[in-house]
Amino acid sequence: MKLSASILPIKVGRYSVVLSRDDADEIGVVEGDRIRISKGKATTSASVQIATGLIARGRIGIYQDVAEELEIQDGDEVEIYPVARPPSVEFIRKKLEGGKLSKEEIYEIIEDVVENNLTEIELTAFVLSNYLVGMDFDEIEWMTRAMIDTGETIEFEKGIVVDKHSIGGVPGNKVSLIIVPTVAAAGLLIPKTASRAITSASGTADTMEVLADVNLSVDEIKEITQKVGGVIAWGGATNIAPADDRIIRVENPLSIDPRPQLLASVMAKKGAVGARHVAIDIPVGSGAKLESVEEGRKLAGEFVELGRRLGLNLACAITNGSQPVGRTIGPALEAWEGLKALEEKKGSTSFLEKSLGLAGLIFELSGLSPNGYELAKEIFTSGRSLEKFREIISAQGGDGDVRSDEIPLGSERFSLESTVEGAVVDVINSRIVKIARLAGAPKDKGAGIYIHKKKGEVVKTGEPLITIYAEKSWKLSNAMEFAIENPPVIVSGMILERYPSYRMV
Amino acid sequence: MKLSASILPIKVGRYSVVLSRDDADEIGVVEGDRIRISKGKATTSASVQIATGLIARGRIGIYQDVAEELEIQDGDEVEIYPVARPPSVEFIRKKLEGGKLSKEEIYEIIEDVVENNLTEIELTAFVLSNYLVGMDFDEIEWMTRAMIDTGETIEFEKGIVVDKHSIGGVPGNKVSLIIVPTVAAAGLLIPKTASRAITSASGTADTMEVLADVNLSVDEIKEITQKVGGVIAWGGATNIAPADDRIIRVENPLSIDPRPQLLASVMAKKGAVGARHVAIDIPVGSGAKLESVEEGRKLAGEFVELGRRLGLNLACAITNGSQPVGRTIGPALEAWEGLKALEEKKGSTSFLEKSLGLAGLIFELSGLSPNGYELAKEIFTSGRSLEKFREIISAQGGDGDVRSDEIPLGSERFSLESTVEGAVVDVINSRIVKIARLAGAPKDKGAGIYIHKKKGEVVKTGEPLITIYAEKSWKLSNAMEFAIENPPVIVSGMILERYPSYRMV
Repeated sequence: MKLSASILPIKVGRYSVVLSRDDADEIGVVEGDRIRISKGKATTSASVQIATGLIARGRIGIYQDVAEELEIQDGDEVEIYPVARPPSVEFIRKKLEGGKLSKEEIYEIIEDVVENNLTEIELTAFVLSNYLVGMDFDEIEWMTRAMIDTGETIEFEKGIVVDKHSIGGVPGNKVSLIIVPTVAAAGLLIPKTASRAITSASGTADTMEVLADVNLSVDEIKEITQKVGGVIAWGGATNIAPADDRIIRVENPLSIDPRPQLLASVMAKKGAVGARHVAIDIPVGSGAKLESVEEGRKLAGEFVELGRRLGLNLACAITNGSQPVGRTIGPALEAWEGLKALEEKKGSTSFLEKSLGLAGLIFELSGLSPNGYELAKEIFTSGRSLEKFREIISAQGGDGDVRSDEIPLGSERFSLESTVEGAVVDVINSRIVKIARLAGAPKDKGAGIYIHKKKGEVVKTGEPLITIYAEKSWKLSNAMEFAIENPPVIVSGMILERYPSYRMV
Repeated sequence: MKLSASILPIKVGRYSVVLSRDDADEIGVVEGDRIRISKGKATTSASVQIATGLIARGRIGIYQDVAEELEIQDGDEVEIYPVARPPSVEFIRKKLEGGKLSKEEIYEIIEDVVENNLTEIELTAFVLSNYLVGMDFDEIEWMTRAMIDTGETIEFEKGIVVDKHSIGGVPGNKVSLIIVPTVAAAGLLIPKTASRAITSASGTADTMEVLADVNLSVDEIKEITQKVGGVIAWGGATNIAPADDRIIRVENPLSIDPRPQLLASVMAKKGAVGARHVAIDIPVGSGAKLESVEEGRKLAGEFVELGRRLGLNLACAITNGSQPVGRTIGPALEAWEGLKALEEKKGSTSFLEKSLGLAGLIFELSGLSPNGYELAKEIFTSGRSLEKFREIISAQGGDGDVRSDEIPLGSERFSLESTVEGAVVDVINSRIVKIARLAGAPKDKGAGIYIHKKKGEVVKTGEPLITIYAEKSWKLSNAMEFAIENPPVIVSGMILERYPSYRMV
């Protein structure tokens, strides 16, 4: 059926179109049914909504999501026809029943994910089946390959391509700001695609965006990497492993991260940019994604096995995730801390040791040096990391001459002071993130937290524990209120524990 | 924030509202966030969509779903405020992790289901966690009670209230048309709420609607039951166990029916109308929901245990579900077969034996007779069942004097004839349903199938196996085409099986 488009300038977050009751009856669809919509060669699936007004017979309401995808303008002619439930729904059911999927079945599912042929319910069922039923290594390998093959890929004609990835879960993890320029300065190619924050206070892409443009296409990523050796781009602006973006939209509201999806999504992104040597950062500890070193080792083993199957030379670093990395959380604050460390060739131990350790791991994997950490430290202290970072910022359209003290931080500030004297026994990741987000991060770039005292540091009564930064005073108030009620930095005095009836001791 | 409503006359199948970018920024929500919207005392949750046009600042776009729920008209003032993810999402996560939910947690989840506080993703996660992780009897009992307590209930001041339920899966199951009047004729109260077809060709509510109004309120159900002893109403028009309707919207597209939900949804509906004696029909056999008698017994045991916990006197009948009940499928055809059997006091054995057997089970449960089947048969053959059915039809606003031959059946007809001589070895439920639906059932009331030959019956070459009825010729063509390619009635000649190389035998 051919219809004339009426653009509905609303972002609805899914692919839906609106038909008049008469047209819906004529092609025999009811509310929620699936149709295929095409404009010229561009085509996608969408679910049907029924208008009781607004959309006249012969017209079709197109929300912005579909309009952008198919480049439809008001009045354009589009063609629709009803489509059946795709076969991949049966494969999802097979997985729900505990079956093992074939390579072809997994490819079909991932293709349907990418082409938006699955409803939100069906996609949720797929993600949850992987969470509750699981996949074996064959299936994970096929899913990884399917995710690579259904998106754009980069092939470099020459050079050694490397990459790093953190599984996340620890705040302030700005290590790519040091790793990428250090590795690039050594002559390796590191086309790093990073995430924006979903539940955290700043993703590496949000942080880098303070200094340069991160919305780069695959062609730009390749070009910049070939020119200066490295890049820090937002993966979401590319079409690399696009299935992952859609799957994350389901995982996030449920706060789940099924192991097969975690492994496949990380490895697909590394595989798609042609990386040969890959370092994976697995933070463990109270408040991180994984609590114990044992869990970290198990995941590391899975990454190594999947790397082997995909022909990637891969190693994992199990790192301390029990408190934030460095002293800052939030886009501008993290950019500031990273640039300042490069400028001054010193900084927070947790931040520098981790960054140079991971850069060193990459050097060892790629055979550049048997003692990678030493090489990384040498490049960093020589100033070559800073110099390379400035080149990368310039190449990404930023001001390569920017100094850390020029980075604008939120002007609304509040310091939470210690009410006791003692030592810091805990910095609670989840509270740190919550406070930074209440203060406006990651949307308000200048919002975030500076941590004055970390674990083991001694604090006197009245000394600041954290300073909250915000751009808007009402957001600062919300963050303050929460921080006072839920202290993120725990100080222990001489009495380490107090029982209800401690006088009896 | 107070906003003026702009009604968007579109049925979107979920609760969403549309804000201008400015208003969304002002209250700090982004696309997909949850808000609470109120007009006076009426209130619901909805997810936010962002308009880039169409909705001016100070206005809020209200789709028909929310407009109907809160009775909002164009220009009405409504109030919205952002709300956090409800605690029940954490309880759903607990179940995903394999935990046992408390009574309070289950009540909270079911309340949120009823109040539309859960997104489609969260609701899918709840349903799938019950499918894959399961619930123990404590949890199922609590869920049943929560489903009763979050909806309307009926209390009869006097009389013995009974009910029946079929778990479905077998086509043509029109037994309520005989059971309800027979039971009511014996002086029991049977306020039967029935379903419409979801994936079948006709639900009991669709069938009854051919003869009378089934869109009854809880008050009308009570009033009619008190007056004539029985009713056959569409449960979806009431607010009885409303959580079930919302849960079905997720189960249906995935073709799953988690055991805890099946048990709770059936028992909640029986509990809510105050039934004390309940007969459950569990069809088993190839092509039914359960394949074997053993599976049927297991489910029966679960129903009995849940009945015991809820204080219901319950028994199950495991019935033959391997072919359709009676000879007709489709709303008008089934109403015709039911009324004709009552008029003539005879009919298809599978239909009559099952109906009277279940009515008899109710008589035995309620202590009316130790030999219930005999009592049911006596009432049926005496004409009292027909007389009572006419009273029920009248009480539900239908024509109590209607005769079966006055029921309009689809005028577009096609008979599929046997190409061989032999005996019917199978009638395939799924194909019967598919053909009836292609012919237009349940939407086109006159569409459906008459089965001339059932299992074990002898057929000659050229004799009709089924007749397809339709209201529209193009739908008849679709049904014919499918039926010819996928014969629903399998006839075996003298050669029962033919191997590829049968000449070698």
